[in-house]
Amino acid sequence: MSGAYELRPIGRVESPLTDPADAPRQGDEGAPQAWLVFSPAVAAGLRDLRPGVEVLVLTWLDRARRDVLTVHPRGDRSRPEAGVFSTRSPHRPNPIGLHRVRVLAVDGLRLRVAGLEAVDGTPVLDVKPVLGPPDER
Amino acid sequence: MSGAYELRPIGRVESPLTDPADAPRQGDEGAPQAWLVFSPAVAAGLRDLRPGVEVLVLTWLDRARRDVLTVHPRGDRSRPEAGVFSTRSPHRPNPIGLHRVRVLAVDGLRLRVAGLEAVDGTPVLDVKPVLGPPDER
Repeated sequence: MSGAYELRPIGRVESPLTDPADAPRQGDEGAPQAWLVFSPAVAAGLRDLRPGVEVLVLTWLDRARRDVLTVHPRGDRSRPEAGVFSTRSPHRPNPIGLHRVRVLAVDGLRLRVAGLEAVDGTPVLDVKPVLGPPDER
Repeated sequence: MSGAYELRPIGRVESPLTDPADAPRQGDEGAPQAWLVFSPAVAAGLRDLRPGVEVLVLTWLDRARRDVLTVHPRGDRSRPEAGVFSTRSPHRPNPIGLHRVRVLAVDGLRLRVAGLEAVDGTPVLDVKPVLGPPDER
């Protein structure tokens, strides 16, 4: 599996969450509102994002370990270890976070979102729309 | 937005699709069955994947352009250009593909999946389970 690819962050998370140990495990488990703050270089790509839409935010979980292949699900040591690709553990070979959030407000290069469990400073890689049914694409 | 991160592929797609121009735009628009072929280095992470489960596969769309910020949705020039973060265009600053597929078979380091629109040779970055309701996690 030769070859590596370079990710270049397009923005950062601004969140009251600062310690991964305190963060909810998923966005629908009590995650707070947060800002996504984008680089001016990608402004044109943001122009059609509107309050109310649901989007998938991809992040780089830069505090995660990359050498982990099995984990106790949800960090619960009473549960048997599982292969990491059957879990949502942040610790994995390519620690890409996938977050479904609702856009609350748009202010230039800043997007206010609800229900994001990523901690303050987390690099943002991409934003994608949630797909509707095929005939609405 | 300083800093870059290095992605290391964990596997590759083996698919009858070879030309991006012929590939369906989404997995549920007639995409064929394909194999995901993983590196021996990540074998332990795969061990709990079973036929029948639905997973999210993240890929690196290595034939995509990274300098595109607005596109005609679905390549249809009769539709007005949209900011790329409101579309699923493969052409985007960090061309990470997100594919929801069903596992059909597991054969060692090879996973047979249904409904994958990525072309042959596409690098695989990650596999994540589709999340059920909070009380089943």
